[in-house]
Amino acid sequence: MSLYRLLADELAQAIAQRTLPGGSRLSSVRQCAAQRGLSFNTVTAAYRLLEDRGLIEARPQSGYYVKSSLPALQQPLRETPGDVLALSAATQDLVAVVLQSQQRPDYTDLALACPRGAAFYPSQKLARLAARILRQQPQLMASYALPPGPERLRSQIARRGLQLGMSLRPEDIILTHGAMEALQLALRAVTQPGDTVGVESPTYFNLYPLLASLGLKALEIPTHPQHGLSLDVLELLLAEKRLAAIVAMPTVHNPLGCSMSLADKQRLAHLVHHYQVPLIEDALYAELQFAAALSPTVKAFDRDGWVMVCASYTKTLAPDFRIGWMEAGRFGERVRQLKFASSIAEPVLLAETIGQFLESGGYDHHLRMLRRLYASQVDTVRDLIARWFPAGTRATLPSGGFLLWLELPENIDTQVLFHAALAERITIMPGVLYSGSARYRHCLRLSCCHALDERFLAALRRLGELARLQQESSA
Amino acid sequence: MSLYRLLADELAQAIAQRTLPGGSRLSSVRQCAAQRGLSFNTVTAAYRLLEDRGLIEARPQSGYYVKSSLPALQQPLRETPGDVLALSAATQDLVAVVLQSQQRPDYTDLALACPRGAAFYPSQKLARLAARILRQQPQLMASYALPPGPERLRSQIARRGLQLGMSLRPEDIILTHGAMEALQLALRAVTQPGDTVGVESPTYFNLYPLLASLGLKALEIPTHPQHGLSLDVLELLLAEKRLAAIVAMPTVHNPLGCSMSLADKQRLAHLVHHYQVPLIEDALYAELQFAAALSPTVKAFDRDGWVMVCASYTKTLAPDFRIGWMEAGRFGERVRQLKFASSIAEPVLLAETIGQFLESGGYDHHLRMLRRLYASQVDTVRDLIARWFPAGTRATLPSGGFLLWLELPENIDTQVLFHAALAERITIMPGVLYSGSARYRHCLRLSCCHALDERFLAALRRLGELARLQQESSA
Repeated sequence: MSLYRLLADELAQAIAQRTLPGGSRLSSVRQCAAQRGLSFNTVTAAYRLLEDRGLIEARPQSGYYVKSSLPALQQPLRETPGDVLALSAATQDLVAVVLQSQQRPDYTDLALACPRGAAFYPSQKLARLAARILRQQPQLMASYALPPGPERLRSQIARRGLQLGMSLRPEDIILTHGAMEALQLALRAVTQPGDTVGVESPTYFNLYPLLASLGLKALEIPTHPQHGLSLDVLELLLAEKRLAAIVAMPTVHNPLGCSMSLADKQRLAHLVHHYQVPLIEDALYAELQFAAALSPTVKAFDRDGWVMVCASYTKTLAPDFRIGWMEAGRFGERVRQLKFASSIAEPVLLAETIGQFLESGGYDHHLRMLRRLYASQVDTVRDLIARWFPAGTRATLPSGGFLLWLELPENIDTQVLFHAALAERITIMPGVLYSGSARYRHCLRLSCCHALDERFLAALRRLGELARLQQESSA
Repeated sequence: MSLYRLLADELAQAIAQRTLPGGSRLSSVRQCAAQRGLSFNTVTAAYRLLEDRGLIEARPQSGYYVKSSLPALQQPLRETPGDVLALSAATQDLVAVVLQSQQRPDYTDLALACPRGAAFYPSQKLARLAARILRQQPQLMASYALPPGPERLRSQIARRGLQLGMSLRPEDIILTHGAMEALQLALRAVTQPGDTVGVESPTYFNLYPLLASLGLKALEIPTHPQHGLSLDVLELLLAEKRLAAIVAMPTVHNPLGCSMSLADKQRLAHLVHHYQVPLIEDALYAELQFAAALSPTVKAFDRDGWVMVCASYTKTLAPDFRIGWMEAGRFGERVRQLKFASSIAEPVLLAETIGQFLESGGYDHHLRMLRRLYASQVDTVRDLIARWFPAGTRATLPSGGFLLWLELPENIDTQVLFHAALAERITIMPGVLYSGSARYRHCLRLSCCHALDERFLAALRRLGELARLQQESSA
């Protein structure tokens, strides 16, 4: 028997025994060849054989993966722009219910888009840095926090921006109270009440209450679960002058996990330049891309300041600190004024702690750990969903982050499922929160950033059962 | 010679030699009698004699003070409500210039309304508490900050509210990013763009940019430098339904330092109840009243939730932490939603540090120290102004806090003075910032919360010289 068949059989057996679970990535051809002392050709032939047998699949620029029995989302739900709709009071109340359950330690949280626990953050090192600042510079606490905040952090943010293709100047960085305040200030800087803002569909659930609170209307633009925002639809809307601003997550979207291609990002930057409409780029998850070579932000292609980029260290370093930032392009002075008249500045203690951590150089190592961990956890959860959830369930194939967006069979109402799960102390995010319309009522968002311990797995399995029960009762 | 005349002469000599400078408080009759082994009657007779000679003055509920040669502000500048005016771009730029100079250690700051330096705060104790939390609970940093924030701090805020006459429930306390964000959220909760908001005249300078950013118009209501907001004018405006909300500082006003009488506070609470218009009560300085018996807030008389009270620990405990709070009365749920959709929550590390400090019981002692210190510093600065500033200068007689509002002779333009002082690296706040109109162009605000060291005194003296030079050149 030839070497490549032996290798293929060995891998097939590992897949059958779930030693290599659905969704997991195989070693690259180069790695596998080196590890086993085989030639490239042998490994390539083995992988092709497994691909032919339907056991693995190649994903562009990412490598070979064990095929999951969970189909990937391939199409956006609708191709036409959505209606302009206000946020319903019921939806607003739903957010409050989710938040309440997330405060309760007896609830298992499959919803919160933020890892909890010391394993996910360099908390010990941050604690040491903060304690040293408190010890050596107690006068920091005795000074009024004034903008623009510590130069060290703003320099580090600018330096790190290079990895995402951005040339930012430290003096243009504005520290904010998390990325949420950055979005809030950006919208207030470039819109008037009554304006219409273009948003991805689905989009970050908390964007809807924010838009509603500012008297802004949302126009939902179809967003492909793998390719992102439909630029054709966007261009039509821009040409018709229907948008005062656009909010988008072109790099690791929440909840879809997708990233736009480089060409699409360039086109998006060109569109907002051409039509002179500000793009508020939410880059919160951009540092959590799974691919080793990071795709740049749209801001990287911004020629004349129409892109306002927002991010924070909430998801990767210190969720409690709420240190966010933005670079507001041509709207910098306006945003600086708004920040001062809205909440003055950020605590120097926290900003300086993060600045010193970034300067000390452990952040890249930490990010690599997170990317590997989340990529693996997302794969594991995808695979478990394929086993436990109703047939016909589809899920996104995230390019980064830790979120999965699920489409369940159309007769399942995830708001009903949400309440059924809540009664069993399991928290999920129902799809209705991700749109101003009701189009995602059979969808839900799961978060794969928590420890996949017995409790998490039991909750996930039970959620699948509840979904199947609902499907059966409605059939 | 009788005992009371001997005592009076001794004190008169001390006043002449400035051992007892203008504005300083005499010992109470009881203290003086005890210290010197004299009877109450003897001391009282001596004080009356000094009062007859015009050397000291009695201030209601506060005691006897050495008369300053600086006349007190007795009248508001105008009695009619001000025009509705937008914030000028020039004024907005002025704020930026002030802020820039406040970043520079080579500038002497007579402007910033926040003490700088470890002497003014229990920074060592706060640093120890924060360091202990970091050491014992590093997982706090590894949790996403979610509302409503630590119960300990909210309970302490409610408990301390009793001292200002307020019965607050911990579950109704909303933590905010300083009092500035509390004002921002309160205004967004109860107004629509285009609405008119009643404000005191003068008022906190940063309120104007905030109102402008929310598309709100300000209507200036005359505010007496000793008695506060004109309730007669307010009632007229309320009866004519011209106000969507009122923002006021009835207890230790910024910049005037005045507090409304108890009867006026009750009437104000009654007015907003009767006309059903929300009052946003800025109680930022209420804990810094000089009188030992604290006057209650207007919130203390709020029967049905029309008063939204805002405050913070920025001025008294930890300026860098930016931990503020509000109780929004009948608008609580709306404010909670706005907070989450605007900036999510406050860092637990900082909120818990302040909660533990308050629980440990040193805050009242600390506040007593601050009140004594600021009362004395305000008096000292008043006296120096009388010596160094142009004849005709008048100043407020603050009931608390550390701010002085000055009216210079009408031919002095304090914006010109501001730039002249800035050229000599001295920062002040010109009066134009405190109104939407130009009525305070000969006024300025000074801050007496900094260490009155040689550098501060030299800057103050130079400011007086610059004012006199301007007066001479314009005469």
